[in-house]
Amino acid sequence: MPRSSSPPPPKRARLNDSPHDHHNPNGGGSKPNTDGRMRDLPPLSLSILGVEPLDEFIKEIADFIHHMIMTRPDIVGNIEVEAKVGILRDKMSGQRIMLPVLVESIIAPDSIDCRFESNMSVNQHKHYNTLLNGLKTASSQPSHPASPLEYHHLYLVDSFYTSEDREKVRVTRDEKTGTVTECMRKIRLGDLNIYSPKRAADWRVSVNLEVPVQHPLGSPTHTRRKDRMSYSHEEFNIDLTQVTSTTSPGAPAQILHELEIEIARSEILLATAAARGDVNLPEHERSAFDELIRAFVNNARILVRNSSDGWQ
Amino acid sequence: MPRSSSPPPPKRARLNDSPHDHHNPNGGGSKPNTDGRMRDLPPLSLSILGVEPLDEFIKEIADFIHHMIMTRPDIVGNIEVEAKVGILRDKMSGQRIMLPVLVESIIAPDSIDCRFESNMSVNQHKHYNTLLNGLKTASSQPSHPASPLEYHHLYLVDSFYTSEDREKVRVTRDEKTGTVTECMRKIRLGDLNIYSPKRAADWRVSVNLEVPVQHPLGSPTHTRRKDRMSYSHEEFNIDLTQVTSTTSPGAPAQILHELEIEIARSEILLATAAARGDVNLPEHERSAFDELIRAFVNNARILVRNSSDGWQ
Repeated sequence: MPRSSSPPPPKRARLNDSPHDHHNPNGGGSKPNTDGRMRDLPPLSLSILGVEPLDEFIKEIADFIHHMIMTRPDIVGNIEVEAKVGILRDKMSGQRIMLPVLVESIIAPDSIDCRFESNMSVNQHKHYNTLLNGLKTASSQPSHPASPLEYHHLYLVDSFYTSEDREKVRVTRDEKTGTVTECMRKIRLGDLNIYSPKRAADWRVSVNLEVPVQHPLGSPTHTRRKDRMSYSHEEFNIDLTQVTSTTSPGAPAQILHELEIEIARSEILLATAAARGDVNLPEHERSAFDELIRAFVNNARILVRNSSDGWQ
Repeated sequence: MPRSSSPPPPKRARLNDSPHDHHNPNGGGSKPNTDGRMRDLPPLSLSILGVEPLDEFIKEIADFIHHMIMTRPDIVGNIEVEAKVGILRDKMSGQRIMLPVLVESIIAPDSIDCRFESNMSVNQHKHYNTLLNGLKTASSQPSHPASPLEYHHLYLVDSFYTSEDREKVRVTRDEKTGTVTECMRKIRLGDLNIYSPKRAADWRVSVNLEVPVQHPLGSPTHTRRKDRMSYSHEEFNIDLTQVTSTTSPGAPAQILHELEIEIARSEILLATAAARGDVNLPEHERSAFDELIRAFVNNARILVRNSSDGWQ
């Protein structure tokens, strides 16, 4: 029996769907032969099965995130799933890696000696800011096909502490009020690197477990200031952040420009991951995790593909 | 302004779309917490732009085929676009190539020293025959989401001649009647190899120019017999062929099992390629080429992914 990741859509009515075509002054009139042949073309099905085949790329990322969630340590905490936009660099040369493939590819873990640099130029950062502001405005129009984006400008200070058992703890404060907004230990569960040879940037998907902890004693080992423009859209936050790091009072500050998208609600991730593929649940519940990851990957791809020019 | 390869679809109503969910005896009742959280999840847009991002993989293949067509030699002939299912082998070791990527990837031309072997085991061939016969039967049911498949069993004999100017000419005859069905010179325009690490097979897209010629004089250099099960679906032919090659009367015959899908009508390829992206034409005419290639790639992917097990 035919199976697929999505329900059978109707055929795409591709040609002859406008009653005006035969008299179109801009098209067929000047190219009678070409146009005449194209009119022979009936609507095409999406495939011999009538549906789009499963997207192997999105399924691989969904399988990875699902595996990280289901095999996580038995510690109470929040699951963080994020995609960062940056550059995959060869550890030896420092140059962007090159693989013999033409389009976006998921790199096999531990196969290439590279590091991910979560950084971009000031101009690139500004470019994204302009695009996201434009999208925020456009998305508030009734004609926009998706929900509107929300926007918050955050000023945060992270202080890092090394606890007695050598775990790293991050304390986040609102810069203006000094209020502690988060105090937690981050456990890295896994990463997947995505090489994107057609674009100016690569990306990385990370899954972490964020465990709330007591405020540590002693002094922080280093601090960083985050000037963050945070755009939220449905289940996702897109954070465009200027990070100023200080390791010691005398050392010069390091400034990085980061772009990341994260899945906003850990409880939704956990609930949909637990329901994934459960045959006792209705189809829309057991596929909710894959739909969430599909939108996550779509959004990450849109961000990476717009590392220059307009939205595409 | 938001742009995309496809028109804005409606949001996917993902959860809470059934009035019976709250009383579903198989789902929510036994998992109140998980289910309760999932009910908080509103319908998701496909992305921040409201649409699926462009499929970079399909666009790359469409760009390649389009380039081959538009830069073809100025000789009257038919354009053949086909995808063959087989194995990419390292030229030195003969082993299937390995690249450090997790999913289907288009290999950069001339980057890897490999050859494509258009062959499969007898069992694999039989497996495809069973699947395609099943699909043919299923596709004739009114509930099937795509058009029905047609089927023809062909017995053909190809004879190859080398002409005086050293061009290779192929004469194809119907084995039963001896009638010449084709007499042509095939000019290879280009190939793209697709590595498919999750599947038992890789694939290759080829673009050729088939030029009708006079029947050559002299004797053929070699012949091959083709026992072909040909399934046609809309604009595509799927050919499952057992090829028996004979190079000389004394030599043992070589038997290969091939699977390929080709775009059936050269004139449609030429007409849609010429119209691609022409802003003077209506949108559905200028996108007809990309829609044709999308269905072609979808079908090739479905074939490759079913190199074992059932349709998926």
